[in-house]
Amino acid sequence: MEKVKRFGVSIEESLLIKFDSFIKTKKYKNRSEAIRDLIRENFVNDSWEDSSKHVAGAIIIVYDHHKRELLDNLVDIQHNYQNFIISSQHIHLDHHNCMEIIVVKGAMQKLIELEAILKATKGVKHTTFAKSTLGEEI
Amino acid sequence: MEKVKRFGVSIEESLLIKFDSFIKTKKYKNRSEAIRDLIRENFVNDSWEDSSKHVAGAIIIVYDHHKRELLDNLVDIQHNYQNFIISSQHIHLDHHNCMEIIVVKGAMQKLIELEAILKATKGVKHTTFAKSTLGEEI
Amino acid sequence: MEKVKRFGVSIEESLLIKFDSFIKTKKYKNRSEAIRDLIRENFVNDSWEDSSKHVAGAIIIVYDHHKRELLDNLVDIQHNYQNFIISSQHIHLDHHNCMEIIVVKGAMQKLIELEAILKATKGVKHTTFAKSTLGEEI
Amino acid sequence: MEKVKRFGVSIEESLLIKFDSFIKTKKYKNRSEAIRDLIRENFVNDSWEDSSKHVAGAIIIVYDHHKRELLDNLVDIQHNYQNFIISSQHIHLDHHNCMEIIVVKGAMQKLIELEAILKATKGVKHTTFAKSTLGEEI
Repeated sequence: MEKVKRFGVSIEESLLIKFDSFIKTKKYKNRSEAIRDLIRENFVNDSWEDSSKHVAGAIIIVYDHHKRELLDNLVDIQHNYQNFIISSQHIHLDHHNCMEIIVVKGAMQKLIELEAILKATKGVKHTTFAKSTLGEEI
Repeated sequence: MEKVKRFGVSIEESLLIKFDSFIKTKKYKNRSEAIRDLIRENFVNDSWEDSSKHVAGAIIIVYDHHKRELLDNLVDIQHNYQNFIISSQHIHLDHHNCMEIIVVKGAMQKLIELEAILKATKGVKHTTFAKSTLGEEI
Repeated sequence: MEKVKRFGVSIEESLLIKFDSFIKTKKYKNRSEAIRDLIRENFVNDSWEDSSKHVAGAIIIVYDHHKRELLDNLVDIQHNYQNFIISSQHIHLDHHNCMEIIVVKGAMQKLIELEAILKATKGVKHTTFAKSTLGEEI
Repeated sequence: MEKVKRFGVSIEESLLIKFDSFIKTKKYKNRSEAIRDLIRENFVNDSWEDSSKHVAGAIIIVYDHHKRELLDNLVDIQHNYQNFIISSQHIHLDHHNCMEIIVVKGAMQKLIELEAILKATKGVKHTTFAKSTLGEEI
């Protein structure tokens, strides 16, 4: 169990009143929980500013599975980047559209490269790069 | 097979030269493929501007599974929102940290609500809301 | 002078060590200053999630002033939205390119509309919508 | 006058119909104008991904001008970065709050550094970093 420390924060009364109402709306149990979240979010955002870092996240692609050879291409690409791919999850959105959520970790540069290749693949209609964290630094 | 149309684009020569070099770097097969991607991305971004819309995406949470009752809480929350959750995928990042990727679709307001509840849960260290598409409008 | 309150925050030791190193890198004087900034940023981000709100910010446009009638068009558009425009600032970037920074406040919907009109104007090469705050809620 | 080129785009009929309705809503004169905007936006976004690049934009700060020594501090900071600052514009938001829009250009690293210093200054309540372009590459 990790040691917990405590420190004091000075804050204008009006800002504190608004913060408390925010905590209630967002269903936080207490101020510390909310403050810790703000601190951690700030770290994760920062880690994505520096493209030399190691990060974790997911690449979400939406594609039309009727396109010829698309499935083969997607598997080939993922094999070329297998060291950076933790797992994939496949969703059938409707008769035409599939969503694939590829969880990735490693050097940001390589993950960006992988997203670009998936995006440029014929039949892939949309890609999203979701920026998460390995959890180590928070 | 959907009907394909063709239209012409006028563009300054210098901008076209840069666009062609972009296409090469990003490994697009041809200009049409890249243009279609820009158009579709623009639509997906737009659909996320209007919080009354139905959308699809993923909520990624990173948490410390050693926190007491966290796993029970996460399951309870997801059951309350089961109509909006397509599936979940679980990754063991390291000894402490887990990543869970929850694929969601439905009214944006409800998805935002779900993310807020997950975020405020004790032990959840980070949440990312990845904005993708149902694929219908692109 | 506004009344200042004080509250305590519990936090894991390892996260606090990282936060202190962040404070040093970012040249904050103390933890309270950094915490207040995180709280205020969070409020400003939230206010831009709800398109019915009143907000403040700036629309930055970059354009080629050699385009015929562009300057007249830009002045006409700004006059139509004069209730939402506080002031403009003009920068000569190079022989061709001008930057204009239009400070705006009011209903978010109208500001988004103004940006769309400026963006669609022939000769305007790029627009940025910078999301700031009226300062009231922070 | 720059030479204008023309190229053809193949596109699914259903996507073209949606694109034409988008063009109408956003008040573009024609498809070429809209396509050129998408291309240019894509380039500007890309240029902000690489922190070694030279860029242009604005740092917007909101502060309470009643804070002791704040105005002196803000002037001192801006003088230290005068090579990166093109001009400033000052807005009186209300009795307490001022907005200052500082137009900046140069190495992205230095601009990020300047924003961090302004943000950490006591009395500065919020900073926004607006990412625009020097106009050269578009």
